[in-house]
Amino acid sequence: MTTNSHSDIQEIIQQILKFRDERDWAQFHDARNLAMCLNVEASELLEVFLWKNPEEAKIEKIEEELADVFYAAFLLAEKYPIEKALGSNKKYDEL
Amino acid sequence: MTTNSHSDIQEIIQQILKFRDERDWAQFHDARNLAMCLNVEASELLEVFLWKNPEEAKIEKIEEELADVFYAAFLLAEKYPIEKALGSNKKYDEL
Amino acid sequence: MTTNSHSDIQEIIQQILKFRDERDWAQFHDARNLAMCLNVEASELLEVFLWKNPEEAKIEKIEEELADVFYAAFLLAEKYPIEKALGSNKKYDEL
Amino acid sequence: MTTNSHSDIQEIIQQILKFRDERDWAQFHDARNLAMCLNVEASELLEVFLWKNPEEAKIEKIEEELADVFYAAFLLAEKYPIEKALGSNKKYDEL
Repeated sequence: MTTNSHSDIQEIIQQILKFRDERDWAQFHDARNLAMCLNVEASELLEVFLWKNPEEAKIEKIEEELADVFYAAFLLAEKYPIEKALGSNKKYDEL
Repeated sequence: MTTNSHSDIQEIIQQILKFRDERDWAQFHDARNLAMCLNVEASELLEVFLWKNPEEAKIEKIEEELADVFYAAFLLAEKYPIEKALGSNKKYDEL
Repeated sequence: MTTNSHSDIQEIIQQILKFRDERDWAQFHDARNLAMCLNVEASELLEVFLWKNPEEAKIEKIEEELADVFYAAFLLAEKYPIEKALGSNKKYDEL
Repeated sequence: MTTNSHSDIQEIIQQILKFRDERDWAQFHDARNLAMCLNVEASELLEVFLWKNPEEAKIEKIEEELADVFYAAFLLAEKYPIEKALGSNKKYDEL
């Protein structure tokens, strides 16, 4: 799967769907399982930082696990367009 | 924050960074905290499906929580370009 | 719900089951939903540490969220006795 | 590590601490890392149910991963006594 130098979300989603359909995996991809998958991938990313100082975390592993998170997130985004939600005011609870 | 009808990842990242910088939040956004944030958001999405049949999950809540997941994921992607990892073979462990 | 000064897991489980049955919630408590619940509670505990130095995390919140984690974990333990698994060699992958 | 037929939380905690101290791992076990570990273990338990109907989930794997969740939870409980929080009213938000 290749991407343009200017990433296009719709194009990435189409390539992920192509990957999925080549393996006939759509049958497993209901929203609940995808949400579960997203949590599993997010934890695998978290694990890269476990027991370490942040600067000791392996960059290659971060990129790998983050890509898996986006994979699950984009499969969900195909079912639930998130553009309008991304446009609304973000919550102010970080502080 | 508005998006084009054809989403552009770099443009979304820039808008998220603008949102972050207007609030001076970059000081909190080390990779480990962002990975923790991503897990918190992923669980809030999972919670939309909790104790329910999948079709009972509120679509509006799914979209809202998924947007929060992308928010955290894009902040991480700004630090760790994921395009090349997205291009490699996805794992075959879904079955 | 009161506990002995010497905690007894079976007694805690019985009290949690009593709490559950008074509300007729067993109908929702299949293992998958309980595993999802456990992840939601674990993330609420993680959130207590988000954007903070560890010593800034509120002890009262940690205790509260940890209790919710044990609540979900004990409901699962009622279905899947974990004593023999706790007895086997723990994994050596912390370093 | 063996347990009594009547489980005693304090005894299990002591055995887990013994296991930890034999390996000199306490140096890694600040509360934030333990909370992260708990999330990683909870997701490994969730993964047992991924892409499956609940009855297809392997019981042996559930027990194994649940034991790992309790391992992390008990290490946190050693720092933050949860008995009084377990005694307060549980939240009513399951329905």
